[in-house]
Amino acid sequence: MSALLTDLYQLSMLQAYLDEGMEQTAVFELFVRKLPRRRNFLIAAGLDQALEFLETLHFSEDEIAWVEQQGGFSKQLLDSLRRFRFTGDVHAVPEGTVFFPNEPVLRVTAPLPQAQLVESRLLNLVHFQTVIASKAVRSVLAAPGKQLVDFGMRRAHGAEAALLAARAAYLAGFSGTATAQAGMQFDIPVFGTMAHSFIQAHRNERNAFEAFARARCQNVVLLIDTYDTEAAARKVVEIAPQLALEGIPIKGVRLDSGDLAAHAFAVRAILDQGGLRDTTIFSSGNLDEDRVHALMRAGAPIDGFGIGTALDTSSDAPFLDAVYKLQEYAGGPRRKRSEGKATWPGCKQVFRNYDAEGRMAFDTVALDIEAQPGERLLNPVMLAGHRIAADQLAEARRRTAAQVALLPGELRLLEPASLAYRVDISSALRELTRALDAENV
Amino acid sequence: MSALLTDLYQLSMLQAYLDEGMEQTAVFELFVRKLPRRRNFLIAAGLDQALEFLETLHFSEDEIAWVEQQGGFSKQLLDSLRRFRFTGDVHAVPEGTVFFPNEPVLRVTAPLPQAQLVESRLLNLVHFQTVIASKAVRSVLAAPGKQLVDFGMRRAHGAEAALLAARAAYLAGFSGTATAQAGMQFDIPVFGTMAHSFIQAHRNERNAFEAFARARCQNVVLLIDTYDTEAAARKVVEIAPQLALEGIPIKGVRLDSGDLAAHAFAVRAILDQGGLRDTTIFSSGNLDEDRVHALMRAGAPIDGFGIGTALDTSSDAPFLDAVYKLQEYAGGPRRKRSEGKATWPGCKQVFRNYDAEGRMAFDTVALDIEAQPGERLLNPVMLAGHRIAADQLAEARRRTAAQVALLPGELRLLEPASLAYRVDISSALRELTRALDAENV
Repeated sequence: MSALLTDLYQLSMLQAYLDEGMEQTAVFELFVRKLPRRRNFLIAAGLDQALEFLETLHFSEDEIAWVEQQGGFSKQLLDSLRRFRFTGDVHAVPEGTVFFPNEPVLRVTAPLPQAQLVESRLLNLVHFQTVIASKAVRSVLAAPGKQLVDFGMRRAHGAEAALLAARAAYLAGFSGTATAQAGMQFDIPVFGTMAHSFIQAHRNERNAFEAFARARCQNVVLLIDTYDTEAAARKVVEIAPQLALEGIPIKGVRLDSGDLAAHAFAVRAILDQGGLRDTTIFSSGNLDEDRVHALMRAGAPIDGFGIGTALDTSSDAPFLDAVYKLQEYAGGPRRKRSEGKATWPGCKQVFRNYDAEGRMAFDTVALDIEAQPGERLLNPVMLAGHRIAADQLAEARRRTAAQVALLPGELRLLEPASLAYRVDISSALRELTRALDAENV
Repeated sequence: MSALLTDLYQLSMLQAYLDEGMEQTAVFELFVRKLPRRRNFLIAAGLDQALEFLETLHFSEDEIAWVEQQGGFSKQLLDSLRRFRFTGDVHAVPEGTVFFPNEPVLRVTAPLPQAQLVESRLLNLVHFQTVIASKAVRSVLAAPGKQLVDFGMRRAHGAEAALLAARAAYLAGFSGTATAQAGMQFDIPVFGTMAHSFIQAHRNERNAFEAFARARCQNVVLLIDTYDTEAAARKVVEIAPQLALEGIPIKGVRLDSGDLAAHAFAVRAILDQGGLRDTTIFSSGNLDEDRVHALMRAGAPIDGFGIGTALDTSSDAPFLDAVYKLQEYAGGPRRKRSEGKATWPGCKQVFRNYDAEGRMAFDTVALDIEAQPGERLLNPVMLAGHRIAADQLAEARRRTAAQVALLPGELRLLEPASLAYRVDISSALRELTRALDAENV
C-alpha cells in the first residue's frame, strides 16, 4: 500500500516537526469515543493488517517526487521520507476482544513524526474491520449455530472493503464468505450457490437445475425463487431421484425473495414429502441481524443465511467515532480539550474484572503505570518496528466466541441495553487530568 | 485487481455454461431498483474503473491453482480461465449523468460466461462511486460556491473506498481531497491543515502556530479549537504581523468542534478587528450536507467545509439497491419475476426529454431498437473488449454540474421531493413483458 494513503496534513506536520527537531517519543492511542445506538459492545479487529502496514511502510521515489511537486516541502523533508521506516512499539488488545468507549485498543509509542504519519491508515484499517466485526457478531448472536455466509462483496465499498469485511465477519463467527479472493487470501471457507441469471439463461428452470447439479456435482444448492418458489421446490423433488442415481445429492435450496418464513415452511413441507429431508434451506435477500432474528423467532425451518449489503456496509451504523489521539510527548502527558471531544491524557491501560461466575463485571481505564486489579487488555505486539505477536485468524475467531460468552446477558441482545457496561476511570487518571488542565489555562 | 475478486458462484456457473456449451451472447444491464428516502436523483460514477477492470481482467496461475484446490472444477474450466479475457461490448451513460430508478446505466453485451463473471466487481465499482457521487452532490447543492474538501479517508471502508470516494466527490463538484494518494492517482487538488496532536505536542498553542506557519510558508491554515477557540483566534491575530513581515500570510483558520456558527461569527469578528480580513474560516467536525445547509442558512461566515465520515461512508444511505441482471440471451429477452424484484426484459435504452426551457422533463425506458423521442443516454464505450471512449475526470465533473443545473428545482433540495421525476416505460416494453410472462407460466 502506498505511503501516500494518508492525509496531506500529516506531511505538513512532518515538515514542521523536522524544522523544530521535534522527534522525541510520542504516545498515541486509538479508541472509540461512543457507541452507535444499537451497539452494546464492540469487537476489536484489523490489528493484523495494521501491523503489516507498519512493518512495510516506506515511500517510493514516485511518491517522493509527487510530494516535491506539491511545493513547500524542504529537501531535508524529502530525504527524511526516503529513509522513513516505522521503528516504534505497539501495544494492543488482541483481535476478537470485546471493548467499550474510551478504552484504548491500540497504542503507538514512537518518535513523534512516525507516530503522527501513520494515523490515517491505522484508523482506516482498524476502524473498518471493527465496524464489521461488531456488526457481524450481532447476526451470530441472533442465529446461534446456523450457517452464516458473507454475501456482500458487490455492494461493499470497493475491493479492500469486500475482502476485509469477509475477514472481519469470519473473525466474528460467520461460517465463511462468497468472495473467492477472500477465501484465497485469508484461508476463509468459501460458499456459493447460483444466480437468477443462470436460471433465466436456460429455456426452463428444471433444465437449469439439472445442468447446474451435474456441473457442480458437490454442494449443489439450487436457487428456487426466480419465478415461483413452491413450484420450483416441486421441480427439485422431481429431479432429485435421477440425480441421486447419478451420485449427485441436492444439498440445499436457496430462497431470496418474498416472505422468507412462509416460503421456508412451504418449501420444507414439499421437500420432506418428496423424501428430501437432508436437503437444507438457505435464505438470503436484504437480510440483516434483525430479519434473521425475526425468522428464528418465527421458527422458520431455515438452516443458513447469506447476509450481504447490511453486513458489508454495516448499514445501520456504517462508522464508529474512532480516533487516534496524542496522549504523551517527551514524557509529559497531553490532552485535547475541544468541546465535546476532550480526551483522557497519558499512557493508559484497560484493566478488566470478572465476577464470581467468570463473567465480565467492569473495566477500569487507568494509567499504564498503575497497579490496578484486573486483567491488562493491552499487551505488546510490536517492538522497534518488528511484530512479536502473530495471531492466527482462527485464534481471533475463537477469542470472539469466548469473549462474547463472558458478556453480561443483556449486552448480547440486539436492542440497546438498559444499562451500559461499567467502565471506570481511575482516580489517578482523573487527578492527572485535573493537574494538566490547571497547568494549561 | 485479482480476477477472484468475485463471488464463488460465478465460477460454478461458468463450469455449467461450459459443460452445456452455453456461450452465446448475453445482455446484462446494471441499474438501481429504487432510491433511498433522501435521494431525489443519482449521479452515475465509476465507469472509468469499470472499463479498466474489463480491459485488464485475467486469471493468474496462482488464482487458477486456488480454483483447482476448491474441487469440483473440470480441467476444461481451468483451461478456459487461463484463456479468459473480456471481449464484449459495453454501452453506458457517461460519468456525471443524472439518473433514476429502473434506468440502466451500464449494459454489457458479451458471451454469457464473460458477461456473468464480471458481475460482482462491476457492481462493486459502479455502485460505490455512484453512492458517493450522489451523496457528495448534496453538499455541493447545499453550499454553492464554497470550498468543499473530502476529509473522510480515516473512516472510509478501506483503501480503495478512500481513494474512490475522493474521486467521486471531486466528480460531484467537491474542490478536492485531503487524501494524498488520491491526489497523485487521479490528479485531484489536495488540501490539508494541521491536527490537534500538532498543537498538543507543543508547549503552547502560540508556538505551535508559529512553527507550523514557518514550516508550511504557503496555504497556512491554523486549527484553533484545541483548547479555547476565541482565545486561539486572538493568538492568530497577535502572531500575524511578524509572520507577514517574514512573507508568510495566514490563509485561514479551521474550526472543528462546538457550535460552529457561533464560533465562526466570533472568530470572524476577532480576525476582522485584527486586520486579518483575508484570512478565511474553514470548518469541519462531523459535518454532512444537512449541517452545512444549516450553517449556510444561519449566515455563518464560513468559507469552506471539510466533510469526512458522512461523505466517505454515505452514512445516511451507505448503499443503493443496485443490481446487474440478465435481460437477453441468444437473441431472446429474459425476465426475472421474483416477488418484489421483477425486472423489465430486453436490451434497453433511456430516452431523455427536455422542456421548453431546456430543463429535464421526463425519461422513457424503452427497447434499444425503438425510435423514441429524446436523447439516448446509453452510448457505446467499449467494443470487443477495447475502450472507445476515455472521459477525463474533469469532463465528468463539468457534466455533473451541467446536469444538476437542468434538474427540476424541487429535485435539487435536500429533502424528499413531493413528486418523483417522471420515468415512463414504453408501451413496446410493457407489451414484451406481458408476452414473455404469458410464454413462461
